Amino acid sequence: VHGALTIEPVRPRFYLPSLDASGVGELGEDEAGHLTRVLRRGAGAEIDVFDGRGRMFRARVVEAERTRVVVRAEEPVAAAPEPAVQVTLVMSVLKGDKMDAVVRDATMMGVSVVQPVVAARSEVALAAFGRAGRVSRWQRIAVASAKQCGRAVVPIVHAPVTLPDWMTRASAATVLVLSEPSAGPGRSFGEVARGQAVDLVIGPEGGWTPEEQCQFSEKGACFIALGGRTLRADAAPVAAIAALFEAWQAW
Amino acid sequence: VHGALTIEPVRPRFYLPSLDASGVGELGEDEAGHLTRVLRRGAGAEIDVFDGRGRMFRARVVEAERTRVVVRAEEPVAAAPEPAVQVTLVMSVLKGDKMDAVVRDATMMGVSVVQPVVAARSEVALAAFGRAGRVSRWQRIAVASAKQCGRAVVPIVHAPVTLPDWMTRASAATVLVLSEPSAGPGRSFGEVARGQAVDLVIGPEGGWTPEEQCQFSEKGACFIALGGRTLRADAAPVAAIAALFEAWQAW
Repeated sequence: VHGALTIEPVRPRFYLPSLDASGVGELGEDEAGHLTRVLRRGAGAEIDVFDGRGRMFRARVVEAERTRVVVRAEEPVAAAPEPAVQVTLVMSVLKGDKMDAVVRDATMMGVSVVQPVVAARSEVALAAFGRAGRVSRWQRIAVASAKQCGRAVVPIVHAPVTLPDWMTRASAATVLVLSEPSAGPGRSFGEVARGQAVDLVIGPEGGWTPEEQCQFSEKGACFIALGGRTLRADAAPVAAIAALFEAWQAW
Repeated sequence: VHGALTIEPVRPRFYLPSLDASGVGELGEDEAGHLTRVLRRGAGAEIDVFDGRGRMFRARVVEAERTRVVVRAEEPVAAAPEPAVQVTLVMSVLKGDKMDAVVRDATMMGVSVVQPVVAARSEVALAAFGRAGRVSRWQRIAVASAKQCGRAVVPIVHAPVTLPDWMTRASAATVLVLSEPSAGPGRSFGEVARGQAVDLVIGPEGGWTPEEQCQFSEKGACFIALGGRTLRADAAPVAAIAALFEAWQAW
C-alpha cells in the first residue's frame, strides 16, 4: 500500500482540566467546537478525555451543542507513560515561532514544566511579552502536543522571567546547564548523580556571558556538553532531553 | 546587555569540495556570490574553507570577481569533531518541507549519510521525486547546516529508494530500527553491542507494516524504543541520534 495513510487514534482526545471526582464535566469552548464543528460528533459519541494532570478516561458525550459539550467519564484508560525524572526546561526565549516549536517538542519529549527565561544574550527582551498573549498561546500548544503524543499530563508553561530572577529562586532540583562547544569541555549527563527532578537550562545562540556562568556555578549547577557540533538553540531541547533520559534510563 | 546580539564566527566559512593538495581552489558559483555580493569581501579577505570530507583551512581570497573567487588555503584549522560512530539515517520521506528540517538536523547532529526511503505507509510516493530537484536541495541544506554547526564533513544525501530496495542491500552496519510505542516494548540503545557504523531507520507516522517488521527482523535488525510518548517523525531523528550517542558515548 504505497501512498498517504493517516492513522487516527481510535478515539479522539479532549482536554478536560475541570474533570473532578463526579466524572462529569464540560469541555472548554475550543474543545467543544472541535468536537461539534470539526469532528461533527454529538451526544452518544465515545471520546477520550484527559485532565492534564495524568488521568485519562474513555468518556461519552451526554450533551452537545455548538459550544457546550458535557461528557461523562466511563473508564480509566492508559495514557503514555511519564518519564522517571521530572524535567523543568529553563529555556532562553527564542525569536518568532521558534519558541512555539520548543514548547511543542518539549511536551512531546515529556517535560513537566517549561520556564522561559531572558538571558543577557537572549534574542527577545522581557518587555516583548507584556500584552502579546504568548504564554496562553504556548499553553495551547502544550495541550495540542500532549494530545498528539498521548500524554495525559500537560506541562505547565510559565511566563518568562529574567535569568537573574530565575537564579534567585530556591529549587531542590539538580541544575544542569547546556554549554556550547566553544565554552570548553563540559561533563556528560551520565557523570551526574541521578536526581528526581532536573532544571535543564538551555541558553541563547550567543551563549552565556562569563557573569552568567559564574552565577550558575554559585548555584551549584553542572555544565553539560553534547559533543562538539554547535546545536541550534531550537533543536537543543530535544537532543538534551533525549540524552538525559538515555543516560539516566528515565524514558 | 539585553536585546539581540548575533555572534558571527570569526571567519566566514565556505564549502570548497574541489580543494586538492595544491591548496588553491575556486569557489562554486553560490559560494562565490555569497562572498562577493552578500558579505562584500574581495581579494585579501581571510575566510575558512572546508572540503566536506573533514578538512578545514584558514584561507585567503587571491582573486575575486562576482562569480569567480579563487582562494589559497594557508593553515589547517580545527573543525567540530566528528562522532565516534558513523550513522546512516535511513528516513522514511516526509511531506512538504519536513524532510528539509530532517536533513538540516541530522547534519547538525553528526550523521555521515542520509538515505531517504519510501516505506509502505510513507506520506510521499517515489514517483514524486522524479524531476523535483529535491535531492540537490537536500544536499545544499546539508552544506548550509554543516557550516552552521562547524562540521568540516558534509553528509552524503542519497536519492530516495523504496524500502524493499534498501532492504536487499548488503551492509556491514548495525541496523537499528526505531519502533512506535504502540508496537510494544523495544530494546534501548544501551542494550545493543556498540558498532563502528549504524543504519538508524526511522519510519513514517503510520508506523511499519507487519511485513516490514518481519523483513527488518530477517535482516538482523534490532528494534529500539524511546519511551512511551509518540514522537513526531520529523523530531524523531534528533532524539534518536542523541540517545544513541549518549548510550554509546559517541558524541
